[in-house]
Amino acid sequence: MSAPGAEAGTAAAPASAVPAGVPLTFDGELARLVDFAKGDGLVPAVVQDAEDGTVLTVAYMDAEALRRTLESGRTWFYSRSRREYWQKGETSGDRQYVREVRLDCDGDALVVLVDQHGRGACHTGERSCFFRVIGTGPGVRAP
Amino acid sequence: MSAPGAEAGTAAAPASAVPAGVPLTFDGELARLVDFAKGDGLVPAVVQDAEDGTVLTVAYMDAEALRRTLESGRTWFYSRSRREYWQKGETSGDRQYVREVRLDCDGDALVVLVDQHGRGACHTGERSCFFRVIGTGPGVRAP
Repeated sequence: MSAPGAEAGTAAAPASAVPAGVPLTFDGELARLVDFAKGDGLVPAVVQDAEDGTVLTVAYMDAEALRRTLESGRTWFYSRSRREYWQKGETSGDRQYVREVRLDCDGDALVVLVDQHGRGACHTGERSCFFRVIGTGPGVRAP
Repeated sequence: MSAPGAEAGTAAAPASAVPAGVPLTFDGELARLVDFAKGDGLVPAVVQDAEDGTVLTVAYMDAEALRRTLESGRTWFYSRSRREYWQKGETSGDRQYVREVRLDCDGDALVVLVDQHGRGACHTGERSCFFRVIGTGPGVRAP
């Protein structure tokens, strides 16, 4: 006997089962305003940890990858080198569940706020792909 | 005759003078590892507020814009549409002073942590360029 909302035959689902993503409530008109043409069909998607703001990775979406992301609630990207779609974590288990997708002022970049599961976003095992520091300085505090 | 790049008559700068950026201490070898070729000479630079982690904007750097950024301590970008270099805030006054430049695992994207001066990063007057929300959801908290 299954609980309300349970999927058929999942009464004895293993503890390791992958949770489904929650589809996003989205603004289709705004999604159509994304300017994919400027970047040969692709826009950079900045994936940011929804909890602490860490920039985890930058990957690319075309219109189809954005649609899959919005409808599945997990991140989908398009690989420029492999020329194929990929869903983050499908191989590694390090999945990204989406809380928010934001579009910039001129429509050619996205920020995707996620719950990062597993070890992190980077294939090297680091939490963030941006683990190498090119340069540092004190900055100048705003007055 | 003045040195290249020097502005004449700045000895008695007014109190409202723009603070100079502080040049970064940087790793030239790592900077040479940036893979500009993958994006036709450009990499996306995610500019993030060093204080609160807000993603302020995404712009593009080529090798020269990165060099200028590291050496001046303020952000320089290359405009894909205007095909020219631009220093953030030079027109608007909304300058970005750099605290850190980070490189991602495969060398084709940068994160630039800044002290944002003025109103913010966006030409619209918003603090962040990412003020439009395409979609929202609850995400799935990591176990």
